[in-house]
Amino acid sequence: MGEFEIIANIRKIAESVPTSGIVRLGVGDDCCLLAPGPGEEIAASTDAVVEGVHFRFDYFSCYQVGAKAMAVAVSDLAAMAASPAAALASVAIPRDKGAPEVEELARGLIETGRRFDCPLIGGDLSAGSSAVVVTVTVFGTVEKGKAILRSGAAAGDEIWVTGAPGDSAAVLACLEAGLEGKNGWLPTPDRKLKEKLLLPEPRLKEALLLAGSGPPSAMIDISDGLAADLGHLLESSGVGAHLYSGSFPVSDFSRSVAEAQGRPPEYFFLHGGEDYELCLTAPPGALSGSRERLEKECGTALLNIGIITGDSGKLVIERPDGRLETVSKKGFDHFNK
Amino acid sequence: MGEFEIIANIRKIAESVPTSGIVRLGVGDDCCLLAPGPGEEIAASTDAVVEGVHFRFDYFSCYQVGAKAMAVAVSDLAAMAASPAAALASVAIPRDKGAPEVEELARGLIETGRRFDCPLIGGDLSAGSSAVVVTVTVFGTVEKGKAILRSGAAAGDEIWVTGAPGDSAAVLACLEAGLEGKNGWLPTPDRKLKEKLLLPEPRLKEALLLAGSGPPSAMIDISDGLAADLGHLLESSGVGAHLYSGSFPVSDFSRSVAEAQGRPPEYFFLHGGEDYELCLTAPPGALSGSRERLEKECGTALLNIGIITGDSGKLVIERPDGRLETVSKKGFDHFNK
Repeated sequence: MGEFEIIANIRKIAESVPTSGIVRLGVGDDCCLLAPGPGEEIAASTDAVVEGVHFRFDYFSCYQVGAKAMAVAVSDLAAMAASPAAALASVAIPRDKGAPEVEELARGLIETGRRFDCPLIGGDLSAGSSAVVVTVTVFGTVEKGKAILRSGAAAGDEIWVTGAPGDSAAVLACLEAGLEGKNGWLPTPDRKLKEKLLLPEPRLKEALLLAGSGPPSAMIDISDGLAADLGHLLESSGVGAHLYSGSFPVSDFSRSVAEAQGRPPEYFFLHGGEDYELCLTAPPGALSGSRERLEKECGTALLNIGIITGDSGKLVIERPDGRLETVSKKGFDHFNK
Repeated sequence: MGEFEIIANIRKIAESVPTSGIVRLGVGDDCCLLAPGPGEEIAASTDAVVEGVHFRFDYFSCYQVGAKAMAVAVSDLAAMAASPAAALASVAIPRDKGAPEVEELARGLIETGRRFDCPLIGGDLSAGSSAVVVTVTVFGTVEKGKAILRSGAAAGDEIWVTGAPGDSAAVLACLEAGLEGKNGWLPTPDRKLKEKLLLPEPRLKEALLLAGSGPPSAMIDISDGLAADLGHLLESSGVGAHLYSGSFPVSDFSRSVAEAQGRPPEYFFLHGGEDYELCLTAPPGALSGSRERLEKECGTALLNIGIITGDSGKLVIERPDGRLETVSKKGFDHFNK
């Protein structure tokens, strides 16, 4: 099957998904056309999922690669509290992957997009690369002035985190060790845990709910690890943070993997990536009502883990015994692994 | 140097470029924010430049890869007659490329963006892929209802083409033959010809001028070869085409490369890709004034090469002796090289 037939097939699948009102022209021309409503702005973000960097086919299926690429892009919309509207995808793929694999990948993109009201309305396919690279650009709408930026945190704000960041990186550590035949001393992640890495769930519903009540003063999604991404937020806001390690939502699983590897128990919580949980700040008390709503309506925990300080750029952790540590904000750095 | 420092450096270069009015928030958050004017729509397109598919480092510099990635994306805006407003880039790069090379690539992206009023306002860097993949998403503005689509051609319309498509693919054939030590019988492209491949010039000024006078009924940029891209236009419009081979703007260079390879003289004109010239249609006489203006104001030729027919999907070429040929619309197909 040639590229044009593959694209025609993908187009058929994509066109079965209804598009939102802002999409004036979708699949099939040189550009798509978007027209936001009078009080709206368009939020846009681009994100790549790269073979050998973000995944290996040893433990990812083509469907999961497409699904993850869409999910991580939608997560960027969630981090701004923007409502998804449409997506474009660009896929580079080696020639040894056939038409069925390309279509599975596209199905992962399209079905995940549909789940989040983010229909795929265009894209680009290049066969002959030496690795799979899937780049997704998402478009969302947000009421003018209502996007939640990284730059709004102020000294005294509380710092909150959704879910239990760290599981995704802990699962990855187990899978990688398994490939090297060294996983005897590591726990075996079950299917539900594995899906945290393979099919991460962007916290879109949570973000929109939080934006409607509170709202947060600043927000970011955790793709490179809490320390690194909170670090970006601190830098954008020109503030510091004081965290209480006793309040960290570290799962038993990520704690046990860290300990089996001789690392501190909160290692994956602080420095693991790819969970796509949210880290946010809000004035004291502003989110106390949201906590229960998030738990009830989304089944997602929201925990206060610290406070914003005026000590610009400084990230300090207080241990239960009162000991203070300054933390490197470095998370997953693609050049310094 | 780590990823975050490289990104900080690129950000500094990018931030030195002024952004247009529709960009409400640029570099540095989870998303950029765009707010078009009341009578405007946003045109958006994503396009990838992939090592091993679109270029090799044997004859491309990092700067040229970045520049080409931006130019081909801007060309999609030109094809809709949209005015560039901003761009996002996603770069996947092997670890053996260092910080200077990443910054050269970013400089190519940013400087080319600036030339076309398309500032880079965000992106994504992944180091550790096995090939360089640069994906650029561009945003442009166009007056509501004024975008020139692929679907507007009607029987009786004239078919026009800018420049002399084919040179880029002919240059590529020479460079590839040179790498294999087999270029003795091929002409050596000079610097100006080489730049048609290495630093293609999107026909933006031309497209906006044409849209303001005429306007064209349909338009597409030629990235996969005239036959393939005109084929897309015919399919979208539900029409056919009758071309006169005697009127094809085939350069002496592309003719001589084709002949040296034992191919028909118009081979690269019809089936070569990567020129990013425009193919457009317009009612008879509508573009007669534009031809001279394009020549004078842009130094770009505009030639009438045929006529749209009601024979849906059929692409026929009439030879000077009156002989008729049906042409395959296949151009550069990434799966069927």
